[in-house]
Amino acid sequence: MSAFLYSSLLAVTIFLGECCHAALLGNPQVIDMTYTFDDTTVNWPTREPFRLKDTFRGYHEKGYYYEGSSYEGFEHSGTHVDAPSHFCKDKWRMDAVPLERLMGPAVVVDVSNKTDNNADYAVTAQDFQDWEVSNGRIPDGSIVLVRTGWGQYWSDKRKFLGTDTTDTSLLHFPGIDPEGARWLVQNRGMHAVGIDTGSLSPGQSHTFSAHQVLCEADIIGLECVANIDKLPTTGATVYALPLKIGEGSGGPARVIAIINNPASGSGKDEL
Amino acid sequence: MSAFLYSSLLAVTIFLGECCHAALLGNPQVIDMTYTFDDTTVNWPTREPFRLKDTFRGYHEKGYYYEGSSYEGFEHSGTHVDAPSHFCKDKWRMDAVPLERLMGPAVVVDVSNKTDNNADYAVTAQDFQDWEVSNGRIPDGSIVLVRTGWGQYWSDKRKFLGTDTTDTSLLHFPGIDPEGARWLVQNRGMHAVGIDTGSLSPGQSHTFSAHQVLCEADIIGLECVANIDKLPTTGATVYALPLKIGEGSGGPARVIAIINNPASGSGKDEL
Ligand SMILES: [Zn+2]
Ligand SMILES: [Zn+2]
Repeated sequence: MSAFLYSSLLAVTIFLGECCHAALLGNPQVIDMTYTFDDTTVNWPTREPFRLKDTFRGYHEKGYYYEGSSYEGFEHSGTHVDAPSHFCKDKWRMDAVPLERLMGPAVVVDVSNKTDNNADYAVTAQDFQDWEVSNGRIPDGSIVLVRTGWGQYWSDKRKFLGTDTTDTSLLHFPGIDPEGARWLVQNRGMHAVGIDTGSLSPGQSHTFSAHQVLCEADIIGLECVANIDKLPTTGATVYALPLKIGEGSGGPARVIAIINNPASGSGKDEL
Repeated sequence: MSAFLYSSLLAVTIFLGECCHAALLGNPQVIDMTYTFDDTTVNWPTREPFRLKDTFRGYHEKGYYYEGSSYEGFEHSGTHVDAPSHFCKDKWRMDAVPLERLMGPAVVVDVSNKTDNNADYAVTAQDFQDWEVSNGRIPDGSIVLVRTGWGQYWSDKRKFLGTDTTDTSLLHFPGIDPEGARWLVQNRGMHAVGIDTGSLSPGQSHTFSAHQVLCEADIIGLECVANIDKLPTTGATVYALPLKIGEGSGGPARVIAIINNPASGSGKDEL
């Protein structure tokens, strides 16, 4: 690689800053922010769990090996996207959400130190403002990911939701305060807001006010997002691609992040 | 934007060539290569169709508006990914497929002129070799997309599959000849092979030999891929993100393409 090209690459790297990245340049580091859908998937207490059914695995009478199954689940269990129609009438349903709203630079807002002794913690406008003091303005088009630390409880349904019964009054997990959600939609231009708990509204919210605020503003929701702790505070690009359910209120999604790392050796090694 | 940065950007643009792209730079053009999942979804004749169920839409007794549904379908109906386990024992199931294999530069192989009067056309090694004469070697890590022209029949299940009965001996649609698949896996290093018909193996294949060849080689399959005709022959990057079904043989997927257009004005306008 010539010195000119190398210096050009560095210049562009610096120039692109946090708004962009060169995906698939060299060997990009891709992080799966999706929990597996199976019988370990935490499901919303009042709805049917995810399951595979009508599974065939074995040799067909014509001699070839074959596997195939059907699946079923609830739109809002497991790693999934909330369409604005979930809590707001006449807003985008799942198949109407523009693809561009499902991708953007990641902004990781870590409030895990506030949830240690408070499973009902609700993220405030101040939390977002404090983040900006350290990290700069939340960019337009970004994917804001709230890290409460709850991902560590995924494998323990009772701990993750606060209850393993169908009594939703017993739900306890952190979420976003409606005032925090309102500050975001009134002051910043993110595409989506995600969280590592089962819902953007805290377990003890019984009117889902944070959802109402976000849906009204056409902000996409991401819930049960895995591996937020593996992302840098900024410097990754998230693609949250849901099942394109016709007139769905949301959908199970494959959420990934690609680490923007253009200044490291990974790209250059390939040249 | 300084002249230095502008010339640097151009230099890097030229340098990156077809193996890479700057996703989300400026206003990327994103193409949805996914059909909506609803009661129009073409389903494999012998399996249950996709459907939403237990749908609630309306005002909850606590006053807020709410929508939510469950879903069910077959792993291999609609736009979906085939895991290698689909036709090969002890190969990757859906949740084990590395994310990197689900993305890469698109290679569009257009054989639509050969299917006009032959619904049973099977793509040959010669077709792939002819493509390379015009377009260069199929890159390592690419997503090879076969365009048969069948996408135009999606809304007509009988025409798309050749039958609207459950008699699979009546299936007629183009696919890949096992000899063509074998040439690809023995000579080229693509990540995945996709098609705009219901199956990589032609409708009249009753042993799914092309699938067997691809699955044995750990090549990911993409079927019922929409809008292949909207892609350039090269110059797009495909992300085919399936539902992460635990031990699935495949999964319904959101497939998108981002057009690589770094030399156009779209990126510069933002600077
Ligand atoms: Zn939800
Ligand atoms: Zn399939």
